[in-house]
Amino acid sequence: MPARLFGDIPGVRPGDWFPNRASLAESGVHPPGQAGISGDKELGADSIVLSGGLEDDEDLGDVIIYTGHGGNDPTTGRQDASQSLSRGNLALAISCREGLPVRVSRGSRVHSPYSPVHGYVYAGLYQVEGFWQERGRSGFNVWRFRLHALTDTELSAMARAVMEIGPEYDVGDESTERRPITIQRIIRNSQYSDAVKRYYGYRCQVCRDEVRTAAGLYVEAAHIKPLGSPHDGPDTLTNLLCLCPNHHVSPDLGGIFLTDRWEVIDATSHVPVGVLRRNPRHPLDPTFAAYHRRLFGDQT
Amino acid sequence: MPARLFGDIPGVRPGDWFPNRASLAESGVHPPGQAGISGDKELGADSIVLSGGLEDDEDLGDVIIYTGHGGNDPTTGRQDASQSLSRGNLALAISCREGLPVRVSRGSRVHSPYSPVHGYVYAGLYQVEGFWQERGRSGFNVWRFRLHALTDTELSAMARAVMEIGPEYDVGDESTERRPITIQRIIRNSQYSDAVKRYYGYRCQVCRDEVRTAAGLYVEAAHIKPLGSPHDGPDTLTNLLCLCPNHHVSPDLGGIFLTDRWEVIDATSHVPVGVLRRNPRHPLDPTFAAYHRRLFGDQT
Repeated sequence: MPARLFGDIPGVRPGDWFPNRASLAESGVHPPGQAGISGDKELGADSIVLSGGLEDDEDLGDVIIYTGHGGNDPTTGRQDASQSLSRGNLALAISCREGLPVRVSRGSRVHSPYSPVHGYVYAGLYQVEGFWQERGRSGFNVWRFRLHALTDTELSAMARAVMEIGPEYDVGDESTERRPITIQRIIRNSQYSDAVKRYYGYRCQVCRDEVRTAAGLYVEAAHIKPLGSPHDGPDTLTNLLCLCPNHHVSPDLGGIFLTDRWEVIDATSHVPVGVLRRNPRHPLDPTFAAYHRRLFGDQT
Repeated sequence: MPARLFGDIPGVRPGDWFPNRASLAESGVHPPGQAGISGDKELGADSIVLSGGLEDDEDLGDVIIYTGHGGNDPTTGRQDASQSLSRGNLALAISCREGLPVRVSRGSRVHSPYSPVHGYVYAGLYQVEGFWQERGRSGFNVWRFRLHALTDTELSAMARAVMEIGPEYDVGDESTERRPITIQRIIRNSQYSDAVKRYYGYRCQVCRDEVRTAAGLYVEAAHIKPLGSPHDGPDTLTNLLCLCPNHHVSPDLGGIFLTDRWEVIDATSHVPVGVLRRNPRHPLDPTFAAYHRRLFGDQT
């Protein structure tokens, strides 16, 4: 699996101009030479280029409705089949699922007041808010992606791990062979969230449930000792759990807590509701569970 | 149950000064004459006043660590017992759970560079990010609340229902007697989210599960036809569901869809996973379910 760089490219700023796709690729902003979407179905999409076409994108500046690829004749470019949620389209859907930042560049042929007269301009980081299918002008179905420009506030919330090169760690889940990988990316919440999700095959450590989406299983990386002030929990694998949204909300708001032996206890009834599933390669520190218990008054 | 006004008070702007608590109350910014927290355990807290005390709050301007009330001697003000998560403290925890905006005002006795020399200043709208218990200076436990100032971006996302006076509707769930109530508030996502949650006793319409927190059951109001452009679904009860976070993520990202008879279908396997629980007083429009199905390519 290739390393993939998410977020801003060092030395490149929004507004920077590139004469052609080759120089845009060389800068690192958009590595593929031709494809409009840079990404894969493992890590998601890191970059798109708006370059105009028969199925137009809608460019409102801070909001872009981007049309996926596929279904068109390679020589004429004409849409002659419906698009599927695969390849770059699936990669963009995964960036939506994972809340990853996507670099956006505009080419001169885009019907937009924001496009340059010649060449390409890097517009900055966007987030995929949602995706859906609709009938395009050709009468065939296309996939659409709604992106919005990340605000400074959103960017600074992401900045925790900006451009950090992650350590080499195992990310194979229990059911697959071990494989080392280096991930170099901005992670919305944590530079290790990707690893902890893979350890458990994108299933919840409390209920084992899977939350299905059109872009694969959805699960969240949750810090046991909270990250923010005044708790200042560390962003390490020893402080991270892989939880479904339901079991993420509950401990954050004091509904369940964890014992030193990683039993899950209902905070109101004090009844055990389960035992945390654990991957032997996932080190967890019980002092963080003790810190979390004290936050909500349990002295277990 | 009293109506409670959440969000900005018309005619009052951040920075406005009030000579005393009576004028602050009269303006509508902070109705109680003495209590530091304005709120109740049904609707949450709409306003707090920082006024200094033995258990100091921490005031960093845009971030405030606020200490709850209770556990102190009414005559000396000295902390002589631990605080409980009840009354105003529970109201603030509910505002956290529901994502409600809280008005913040500062009095002159706050140890803070942001406090006025005399009287009170309205600081603006904040959001409760989290709450927890810790040992205060007195050696007794206090509840703390972390608030951050809402940015313009966050405020405009909330602005959909700003200061709208909701219609009179029934909000009793199936297990309680019917009672009419008027709710006048800003709702983060929807002016009807409160109603739809009460119809189902804060339990998911798909799985019936309850997500427990220290501040009561957590559940989300979900639009079937999405609110944003280009879908422009309406913010009405006919387009709203009461869902746990897991069953909210899944349809938003195309993992499940609903038939016209409100069966819940897994989008990948096309296997029915359940039937939507329905309160007879909750009108739902199947054309929104059909719109949602088309977004992810199902022609059912």
